[in-house]
Amino acid sequence: MPHRYFTTDIAGGTARLWGQDAHHLAHVMRAKLGEEVVLCDGRALEYTGRITRFEKDCICFSVSPGYPSAAEPSIQASLFVGYPKQGKLEVIIQKAVELGAVSVTPFFSRYCVAAPKKEEEKNARYNRVAAEAAGQCGRGILPRVEPPLKLADLPARFGDFDRVLFFYEGGGAPLRQAVQGAGRVALITGSEGGFAPEEAELLQNAGARVIGLGPRILRCETAPTAALAALMAFTGNLE
Amino acid sequence: MPHRYFTTDIAGGTARLWGQDAHHLAHVMRAKLGEEVVLCDGRALEYTGRITRFEKDCICFSVSPGYPSAAEPSIQASLFVGYPKQGKLEVIIQKAVELGAVSVTPFFSRYCVAAPKKEEEKNARYNRVAAEAAGQCGRGILPRVEPPLKLADLPARFGDFDRVLFFYEGGGAPLRQAVQGAGRVALITGSEGGFAPEEAELLQNAGARVIGLGPRILRCETAPTAALAALMAFTGNLE
Repeated sequence: MPHRYFTTDIAGGTARLWGQDAHHLAHVMRAKLGEEVVLCDGRALEYTGRITRFEKDCICFSVSPGYPSAAEPSIQASLFVGYPKQGKLEVIIQKAVELGAVSVTPFFSRYCVAAPKKEEEKNARYNRVAAEAAGQCGRGILPRVEPPLKLADLPARFGDFDRVLFFYEGGGAPLRQAVQGAGRVALITGSEGGFAPEEAELLQNAGARVIGLGPRILRCETAPTAALAALMAFTGNLE
Repeated sequence: MPHRYFTTDIAGGTARLWGQDAHHLAHVMRAKLGEEVVLCDGRALEYTGRITRFEKDCICFSVSPGYPSAAEPSIQASLFVGYPKQGKLEVIIQKAVELGAVSVTPFFSRYCVAAPKKEEEKNARYNRVAAEAAGQCGRGILPRVEPPLKLADLPARFGDFDRVLFFYEGGGAPLRQAVQGAGRVALITGSEGGFAPEEAELLQNAGARVIGLGPRILRCETAPTAALAALMAFTGNLE
């Protein structure tokens, strides 16, 4: 399988690759003139790029007409996840990207152990984790990690989705019913501490539908992975 | 929710809890006489136990009649997983237990980076990881981690299952079709290095059915979690 790189510098039958990716292809992969790689514009279009020139800061390609990435799910799944302790969020992001999420948004809630700290720096790192995962698993887009919100700010985002699924202890409707006909889906899962009753009420009053994930208590980093896998399975995007 | 402990020392309306669990309940949880906990016999029967006496090495309970654990899935799922690098197997075991697997068996194959080393010690540790996860997520049984096999030894185990699902790159039948009517299911996923073509052939010739997990390339620790979540979702055990 040829290597894959994301670049937005694609136009008129040519493309260029910059920065770390150019370094990787030239010096780690030791690519030669005429070699082919897959170039992805991050918007689900892919191109076969043939190396035509190595410059100091970039690599130049001639590219074939773009074709749609086969790796993108038929549904747009956005994960909103309670901000967990250090390290776990990166695992959650990595798995969410592998399983086809288009975005991950952490949020602070009452029982979060984590508190906001250097979130701008952290967000840059989280987006690097997402980009690396996207390259490795062959995504056609670059899923984004958004800056953290407060739980109370989530309802303002619900209008972006035609289904808001709230995975809450004790359970609710089966996911298989809730996803029928869904296009843009928000998934909400909690941090280690779960949700306060008034937080659950706030989300439900704003239109989030409570969904069960079975009688076993899933860890905060297992729940989003399981929920996304089940969502993708039920919508035919895991086969 | 009352605390849960596994003990096999349950008979005639009484039970005893030993070792670390007894220490935890007495000295960490500071339980008092008359307090109630959930005792689970590890075979999917649970009991409400009321503390009747603290002894030096154990805690004694009177117990109500046993009731079936609600946490056990309707299918028996056994995971066979290519032996990954250090640490990842423990994550895989933890997630598999949370998602309802009854057993996890690592196996060595051609492209495994890991090589057999102190496997007896490691197996004891892996089973502690499984037991801890089982307690935390509320399982009714104690899932077991078996000593590692070689890939060539897997087919001898296929007779234990009425479905052997082989998650192999490139994909095959959709899981949703393959699980219909399944009772005892084996899931086979690879290590970081995947499978050699002759290994894949060996498994298929022995009756393993190739199953796809979608167009994205899942990491070796993501694939078993996603496969188990999808299996449990399709069989109604994740709602």
